[in-house]
Amino acid sequence: MSAGASQTEAVLAEIDGGIEATRERLFALLSIPSVATDPAHHGDCRRAAEWLAADLAASGFAAAVRETKGRPLVLAHHPGPPGSAGSVPHVLYYGHYDVQPPDPLALWTSPPFSPALVEGPHGPRIVARGAVDDKGQVTTFLAAFRAWHKVTGSLPIRATVLIEGEEEVGSPNLEAFLTEAHDELAADVAVITDTGMWNIDTPGLTTRLRGMAYTEITLKGPSRDLHSGMYGGSALNPINALTRILGDLHDDDGRVQVPGFYDDIHPLDPATAAQWASLGFDEKAYLAAIGLSHPAGERNFSGIERIWARPTADLNGIWGGYSGPGSKTVIPSEASAKLSFRLVPGQDPEKVVAGLKRFIAARAPEDATIEVKVFSASRAIEVGLDSAYVRAARSALADEYGREPVMMGCGGSVPVVESLSRALGIDSLLMGFSLEDDKVHSPNEKFELKCLHKGARSQARLLAALARSGN
Amino acid sequence: MSAGASQTEAVLAEIDGGIEATRERLFALLSIPSVATDPAHHGDCRRAAEWLAADLAASGFAAAVRETKGRPLVLAHHPGPPGSAGSVPHVLYYGHYDVQPPDPLALWTSPPFSPALVEGPHGPRIVARGAVDDKGQVTTFLAAFRAWHKVTGSLPIRATVLIEGEEEVGSPNLEAFLTEAHDELAADVAVITDTGMWNIDTPGLTTRLRGMAYTEITLKGPSRDLHSGMYGGSALNPINALTRILGDLHDDDGRVQVPGFYDDIHPLDPATAAQWASLGFDEKAYLAAIGLSHPAGERNFSGIERIWARPTADLNGIWGGYSGPGSKTVIPSEASAKLSFRLVPGQDPEKVVAGLKRFIAARAPEDATIEVKVFSASRAIEVGLDSAYVRAARSALADEYGREPVMMGCGGSVPVVESLSRALGIDSLLMGFSLEDDKVHSPNEKFELKCLHKGARSQARLLAALARSGN
Repeated sequence: MSAGASQTEAVLAEIDGGIEATRERLFALLSIPSVATDPAHHGDCRRAAEWLAADLAASGFAAAVRETKGRPLVLAHHPGPPGSAGSVPHVLYYGHYDVQPPDPLALWTSPPFSPALVEGPHGPRIVARGAVDDKGQVTTFLAAFRAWHKVTGSLPIRATVLIEGEEEVGSPNLEAFLTEAHDELAADVAVITDTGMWNIDTPGLTTRLRGMAYTEITLKGPSRDLHSGMYGGSALNPINALTRILGDLHDDDGRVQVPGFYDDIHPLDPATAAQWASLGFDEKAYLAAIGLSHPAGERNFSGIERIWARPTADLNGIWGGYSGPGSKTVIPSEASAKLSFRLVPGQDPEKVVAGLKRFIAARAPEDATIEVKVFSASRAIEVGLDSAYVRAARSALADEYGREPVMMGCGGSVPVVESLSRALGIDSLLMGFSLEDDKVHSPNEKFELKCLHKGARSQARLLAALARSGN
Repeated sequence: MSAGASQTEAVLAEIDGGIEATRERLFALLSIPSVATDPAHHGDCRRAAEWLAADLAASGFAAAVRETKGRPLVLAHHPGPPGSAGSVPHVLYYGHYDVQPPDPLALWTSPPFSPALVEGPHGPRIVARGAVDDKGQVTTFLAAFRAWHKVTGSLPIRATVLIEGEEEVGSPNLEAFLTEAHDELAADVAVITDTGMWNIDTPGLTTRLRGMAYTEITLKGPSRDLHSGMYGGSALNPINALTRILGDLHDDDGRVQVPGFYDDIHPLDPATAAQWASLGFDEKAYLAAIGLSHPAGERNFSGIERIWARPTADLNGIWGGYSGPGSKTVIPSEASAKLSFRLVPGQDPEKVVAGLKRFIAARAPEDATIEVKVFSASRAIEVGLDSAYVRAARSALADEYGREPVMMGCGGSVPVVESLSRALGIDSLLMGFSLEDDKVHSPNEKFELKCLHKGARSQARLLAALARSGN
């Protein structure tokens, strides 16, 4: 065993011995109701930031609470081993201390800001608002830093920690801060700990995130609402016209008919495809949990591919005319829909929106005025599997869990990944320890103590692996 | 000139001489705010009914205010000429004394229940809520009865008058009354005065009314709302599915694709088709008034045919998912739409609804649960043009206006026609004197004094013509 390896073993032993203290620190953080959306809790948000800055300082960081136009964030720097300047990687850790509001309170089995340890099928679990999202996850790297600091007096790499306080309200001030503090934040790679594992025994690295083009379409016809008896058969009906256009979005095989939609998609790499095929994803069970029995979406792709690696077009809302009880014989003057596309690597959201406009124009009836608003347009994220950082994370997780991590996709987006890429030009490793049943954003949110513990050990191993990757 | 003809001339002269008194009586009736939907005006409804009963009594009717579960109605009987029992037709006149609420008050140029005489392009017009709908129209037959009574001491036919007080709230108690008072109401034909003319110089008889099948469709998919990132591409999206089904309602020629939809339609009789073709209906202008320039609906039919003689399928409302500002990445658990069909003679609403259910079932995705509620189902009405009553009305109108009346259709329905047919087994003559610009149900509702005057003269002539038809 090399010196590095024995050092890592000592750090892991320190984590094991200190797990009760780690849990207590997490409980202290969970006791602060840092709900960013609620002005009554803005003082609590600051308290949480101050608590985190103090915790990082205890691990050898130069840590400070930094102001934004909204909730403050925590920024902390660790120079790495003495005399290592430039020779070790510089890694930016991201997390958030703000939490979702706890409503509905009546459904909690214990008060949301009085963390409880409850026995579950995988041993004790921590129940509290923020248990997993994201205070528990943040605690995995805080515990790793603390153990490395205690055992070695330092960290094996240079680290910057950014813990924001507005993630649950859409991070309205994050990108401005990233741009403003660009020089201070310059790092080689980011580690984001806000995602999940494949299951409690199988770690995961999220290397693909779908992008998004979110639009709102309004089709206007007559200048006022009409009586369907007087005008039916003569006047353009905007609901008829809109459903006729949108009803044509997919062909019989579930393929999106927007022109050029599939043109630029990067094919899924065979290794990932093979790994996914081996996972035995039970789509039947996945759908049964929501009352369905038949997969929707494109034919000829597996369930996991359809969610992680194929684009979609989903109507998220539609409205027009009369929706009250009984009947009203109206032809309304307009109808609208919200239509969003989940995008995969290679697709350009601008091109998708342009294709949508052509798709609509080709089907629009004479006299219809159609407006397409675009609320968001972001590319998919694809982390190259052959980077030194990904290899470091894979080996850290494989060593900890005794099995290869799943290279996971994420059907949704993680906006900070794109912000870090845009403002700082760096890729992100999404290494997280949440489970599908963690009740994120719901009453009785929980984090398995086992996930906290092995998450902290994985983070400690990652520090060592990243240090090796810099050699 | 026969004795009958000179008698009619005397009655018409009486109407001409008494037009100012007729207008004053109408003003008195218009001053009573008989808004059936507003409990604060229920006393006014009774006052209007009492006023009408007194007016009919003054014309020789045995008139009474009769109770229903809602607003009272007026029922009056006139035996016809002395000793005529059974030898003259028995005609049931229908109208309503209740009016729409006057809101929005701010848009009225004079108070809605203080009738005003205002100069317009066709001479003086009466401006008030109910001016045309239906108090002014009712006054046309009241004035004819009064003149016949004054000149001859009687009426040339046997007449029953039914003036209800809940038409604007959907006549919830009318059919029960018709059934209950069936024997008292037995008549040969009904005259309904609540429809329009072709234009101010051209009278109209409405002989075709479209029927209606009004449905609400709800498509349910997942058991709860889903995140479109986590489930998009795997879970059935009810809005996608509903628009896909409904978007297929019409083919490229605007034909409704519900199976069997056109099977049973009675062809338009050639005489009516020829008359309609001669009217020079300006669909461009009709559509320009509502901001449109291209007719919708079935190809290869004229504008007038599409509104009066062709069936339609119009979505009157649609809703599902998120409709607030900005974006929400939801796949909702259900989506709904209101879909109504305007039906033409020959179509069976039950068959249309059954066809709709087959249409939906053939397109429903696996896992979708689809509910179809039916709010109303009524056949179209078609009055045979060769009946003695229609011939009487045509000659009365042709004599008064010096031109043939247009055999009009009506795109909407007039529910009382079906109620009279169902409860009493009689056909209706729809002879009315409203114009397209009368602002029915809107602020500044009006009735041209010329329409009142020539309407009363037409009703007087109709009484004579009906009497002749009984010979």
